[in-house]
Amino acid sequence: MKPTVILAPAPQRRDRIFTSEALAALHDRYDVVDLEERPDADLGEHLPRAFAVIGQPDLGTAALESARELRVIANVEGNFFPNVDYATAFRHGVRVLSCGPAYAGAVSEYALALALDLARGISREDRAARRGEERYFGAGNDDAVLLSRANIGILGFGNLGRATAELLAPFRPRLRVYDPWLPASVVAASGGEPSSLDETLRQSDIVFVFATVTSESTHMLDRRTLGLLPDRARLILVSRAAVVDYDALLAELSTGRLYAAVDVWPEEPLPAGSPFRTLDNVILSAHRAGGIPQAYALIGDMVVDDLALIEQGLPPVRMQQASPELVGRYRNRPVT
Amino acid sequence: MKPTVILAPAPQRRDRIFTSEALAALHDRYDVVDLEERPDADLGEHLPRAFAVIGQPDLGTAALESARELRVIANVEGNFFPNVDYATAFRHGVRVLSCGPAYAGAVSEYALALALDLARGISREDRAARRGEERYFGAGNDDAVLLSRANIGILGFGNLGRATAELLAPFRPRLRVYDPWLPASVVAASGGEPSSLDETLRQSDIVFVFATVTSESTHMLDRRTLGLLPDRARLILVSRAAVVDYDALLAELSTGRLYAAVDVWPEEPLPAGSPFRTLDNVILSAHRAGGIPQAYALIGDMVVDDLALIEQGLPPVRMQQASPELVGRYRNRPVT
Amino acid sequence: MKPTVILAPAPQRRDRIFTSEALAALHDRYDVVDLEERPDADLGEHLPRAFAVIGQPDLGTAALESARELRVIANVEGNFFPNVDYATAFRHGVRVLSCGPAYAGAVSEYALALALDLARGISREDRAARRGEERYFGAGNDDAVLLSRANIGILGFGNLGRATAELLAPFRPRLRVYDPWLPASVVAASGGEPSSLDETLRQSDIVFVFATVTSESTHMLDRRTLGLLPDRARLILVSRAAVVDYDALLAELSTGRLYAAVDVWPEEPLPAGSPFRTLDNVILSAHRAGGIPQAYALIGDMVVDDLALIEQGLPPVRMQQASPELVGRYRNRPVT
Amino acid sequence: MKPTVILAPAPQRRDRIFTSEALAALHDRYDVVDLEERPDADLGEHLPRAFAVIGQPDLGTAALESARELRVIANVEGNFFPNVDYATAFRHGVRVLSCGPAYAGAVSEYALALALDLARGISREDRAARRGEERYFGAGNDDAVLLSRANIGILGFGNLGRATAELLAPFRPRLRVYDPWLPASVVAASGGEPSSLDETLRQSDIVFVFATVTSESTHMLDRRTLGLLPDRARLILVSRAAVVDYDALLAELSTGRLYAAVDVWPEEPLPAGSPFRTLDNVILSAHRAGGIPQAYALIGDMVVDDLALIEQGLPPVRMQQASPELVGRYRNRPVT
Repeated sequence: MKPTVILAPAPQRRDRIFTSEALAALHDRYDVVDLEERPDADLGEHLPRAFAVIGQPDLGTAALESARELRVIANVEGNFFPNVDYATAFRHGVRVLSCGPAYAGAVSEYALALALDLARGISREDRAARRGEERYFGAGNDDAVLLSRANIGILGFGNLGRATAELLAPFRPRLRVYDPWLPASVVAASGGEPSSLDETLRQSDIVFVFATVTSESTHMLDRRTLGLLPDRARLILVSRAAVVDYDALLAELSTGRLYAAVDVWPEEPLPAGSPFRTLDNVILSAHRAGGIPQAYALIGDMVVDDLALIEQGLPPVRMQQASPELVGRYRNRPVT
Repeated sequence: MKPTVILAPAPQRRDRIFTSEALAALHDRYDVVDLEERPDADLGEHLPRAFAVIGQPDLGTAALESARELRVIANVEGNFFPNVDYATAFRHGVRVLSCGPAYAGAVSEYALALALDLARGISREDRAARRGEERYFGAGNDDAVLLSRANIGILGFGNLGRATAELLAPFRPRLRVYDPWLPASVVAASGGEPSSLDETLRQSDIVFVFATVTSESTHMLDRRTLGLLPDRARLILVSRAAVVDYDALLAELSTGRLYAAVDVWPEEPLPAGSPFRTLDNVILSAHRAGGIPQAYALIGDMVVDDLALIEQGLPPVRMQQASPELVGRYRNRPVT
Repeated sequence: MKPTVILAPAPQRRDRIFTSEALAALHDRYDVVDLEERPDADLGEHLPRAFAVIGQPDLGTAALESARELRVIANVEGNFFPNVDYATAFRHGVRVLSCGPAYAGAVSEYALALALDLARGISREDRAARRGEERYFGAGNDDAVLLSRANIGILGFGNLGRATAELLAPFRPRLRVYDPWLPASVVAASGGEPSSLDETLRQSDIVFVFATVTSESTHMLDRRTLGLLPDRARLILVSRAAVVDYDALLAELSTGRLYAAVDVWPEEPLPAGSPFRTLDNVILSAHRAGGIPQAYALIGDMVVDDLALIEQGLPPVRMQQASPELVGRYRNRPVT
Repeated sequence: MKPTVILAPAPQRRDRIFTSEALAALHDRYDVVDLEERPDADLGEHLPRAFAVIGQPDLGTAALESARELRVIANVEGNFFPNVDYATAFRHGVRVLSCGPAYAGAVSEYALALALDLARGISREDRAARRGEERYFGAGNDDAVLLSRANIGILGFGNLGRATAELLAPFRPRLRVYDPWLPASVVAASGGEPSSLDETLRQSDIVFVFATVTSESTHMLDRRTLGLLPDRARLILVSRAAVVDYDALLAELSTGRLYAAVDVWPEEPLPAGSPFRTLDNVILSAHRAGGIPQAYALIGDMVVDDLALIEQGLPPVRMQQASPELVGRYRNRPVT
């Protein structure tokens, strides 16, 4: 008798997050109830003998009370929504796991790419060249700067911020970090200088925004705080739109005082007539930082590895364990 | 009596390579004959008592024979041209120095920026967004790849190649290196795998071209060798146009099989009607990799530091010493 | 009303793990019931209103059921003993934390020190010099080896193994790792090669033993497995004596085939007449790897930081969270 | 016709610096005149057609004037002695190379080993255990310190100092560097803080001495400067005895105020009755830092590689090029 695993990845897609090898391993080890393939199957019917749920279906109190064999809920979407009674899950000793770390590599490389592009005007000058207006040698480089030894700020020092700090290490930046969820010692141990939000903005010529959305962080970057940034600062927005007041951002960018690379938008798609679309000091990006094939495939690999550990009576090590303290605080919107 | 220094930076410009602090230090320590300020001054008149020449003026045999106090020629343009009798300089124990290392930081950051942009389609999707055709989430990411753990090739492992390898370290790539001027042990000590040109091209999904131009390296990348690259390979050209056969490159790029970021061109400016200008799988760049303000200012700092060392009877450590073996082999064109 | 914190560090000592600053912070924020100062105080009386227990006193089912305000048990000794009803603690959502990470820096530096000493014969030749028998230059170096690019094995890749791998990074070793609790991907992501126990021993010239004691790992290093080590291998034992069969180890060392640095012993103090005491290919160490002043002081700092986070409704980040899966599996003996 | 290479390694020994593979390569490519094998052969007779001299035989003006084909002198002993007319060699464009870098790996690992040993009392406590006086757990650790985040000083930032700084990188020390031959920028680029001798000593709890001997550096560490070190400082002496006043050092060590690891001695062997031999706060080492089999074998590999490059008209890259400015300044004694 193989343990039962319920596979309910929506809005993720099974074949995007599982390579054929990973899916074969899953079927080899478990009795897989595939709710993507059988959307009419009744989750409730299979829950009482399920060892694991892969996905983020509705799991209210009654459902979880019935799931007496359940050991793990492996969220493959990346956000914790209030459709699960997490308190009951924790009380029952069910591991609640997030695939968030699967995106850290993709997002941090993308964030670095955006920072380097803004620092050197790559997209802007490529556009100029297509208009026949490129400027050779130093002529187009007046505002070009190095990341090496630069003053760099990071807002939010979770998986994404730390992965980015690792990529930045050879640049030997002076790295200021704002993260109200971390003690100073943890930031310092990673080579950053723990700083307040204001100080980080005031002192940094390049700022990465990785903050997640909570009631406290909503519009953390508004007219006042954006105004703290030094002239010619470069801002890289790759986490959540809600942490930024886009009207204030637009106002600052319209003056040409700052540069920004923007991957997340308060409304997606960005409206056709949005004035952001014509700014030359902006890199436009369509929420592309994390969702690349290698990141998606990592999710399935992480799930397979962690299920195997849990089955052997060992703790999971690849996915991120949900914190009971935090699981109810996020205000991220679902990615559809 | 202060030693005499002849300052003849053309085609460089004095105030681009010397900060006001560096220039003040130079005047403080030396009797500076500034040929930029006094273009009518006679180099030959000042040479006999010159301790140093900063720049790359014509210095033939007779001139060098007359320069009996000369200890150092500090080239601030970056290339060694045949307007100097290097053999006589070396025989007289004159240090011949190059500012080449000043550009390594700027070029390597730029090369990494281009590689990350090609890997993730940043410029391309920014252009799409300005046309209102951006694709959200995974939709525009079908061909996106990570640099982390990628197969990466480097052609030419001098200052530029090594600086780039250092920036790549946190990505833990599998790094193949082709450099016919280096023994295998030197490449291996830097974490690369010494490889032939063909093998490097065949096995690498991302290839950086830093090779300098010699008679051997001209059109090193031609139809045959470009054909060795795997499908979807990304090529970053930031060194010298002459190492590439651009007709062959255009042919490959026109099929869409490869991606390229091109910073150097056989004819600059690139002709208005060049078909490169419309390719969507290319990043167009106008010879901008090295010439940024911070790189230029570094040249003056290096000159000031090394002149001070030489005056104290110590060897220079910041500029690169010209090799008698190599100084006549380069075929780089002057940068004007 | 400040939250109540029960401080019961025995067998640790309060003033060894709390600097005066850390202790002042604790008293400032909490109503501290100090059971070291007041050994007659009744734990049970204070438990019902305790927010935190710092230490590892007996906490059976009844005690934990009474501790209705309890949010965290911060173990400051480093091992989980069966005097606590962990299942009840977890069911109540009490964070169970370990100070283990506080020792990682001290142990990894010590392990590296022992490895380098064995590699170069430092203690042995220092003893020889005190007998007037030192050998100059290459004479005493016949068996000296570099760690750089060496074949190195690590048994157990938790906090200690990973911290050691980080210190080894500049040596660019070929690093084989055996850890049955980790999937291969996690080892590979740290630059190691996941290997079996036998393969790790067979291929490694330097082997670090960090394995914890469980029923499976007891006498993991016995006559057979020690026999797999190559001639002249260096063995560094700094975790737990029970993972090694010391009779087999003595037999191997007596032949002179191997070298070992031994910090843990099946009986401590090591008996006066132990034959280990006279072996020249052994470094004798008295369970000194972790317990240094800076490591102890780190424990208090970690406790203060994590209590502050938990009080703010945030997850702890400095101490290690006990895994429900593992907390009952350890067979470590108390350190007295 | 193969080029002629004169092999005159004394006081080095051919088979210690050439592996059989390296020696075979040498014989394969060159007509080798082996003066170790044929001590009666006449160097002068072979010089006129020699392409290379491997070793450091007497090469006065007349000899060098006769050596019209000579392209390279590859010193395999590590010091430049005044038995060669270096000025003539340089004027003739002969490359003068040093095997010094071959020792950097061995010396830096040894220096780190000594520093870690002093930091943790490993040799001292091993000696105590052999007397049956070991102290368990924290008892012997009162004076133990971490290298991590420590204040560390390096005197002399050539090959040895830099290699050591690389090994120290994961410890994230605060690194002060004194090197009067380097501009501040070069030290800073390696992550160190350029400092004066006094400041380095005053602020560092661990000090590595790599300074070479010149007239300026003789007895650089004397009563006054040793007195600047903080209490409990650890001093690692692995370069040249002449930079230290050993009477002053003995005086400081006798009070127990400092710790030292000493690998070089003003008189070698150290006299039998030297009071250094009984100090418990000293590690005694018999000039063993560099001369290990792997370092010796590296010399031959470097020679073979660089001769091949020079023969191809390329500059050498593995051995260190002698500086005309410095070659006459060293006051090192021959290693016999």
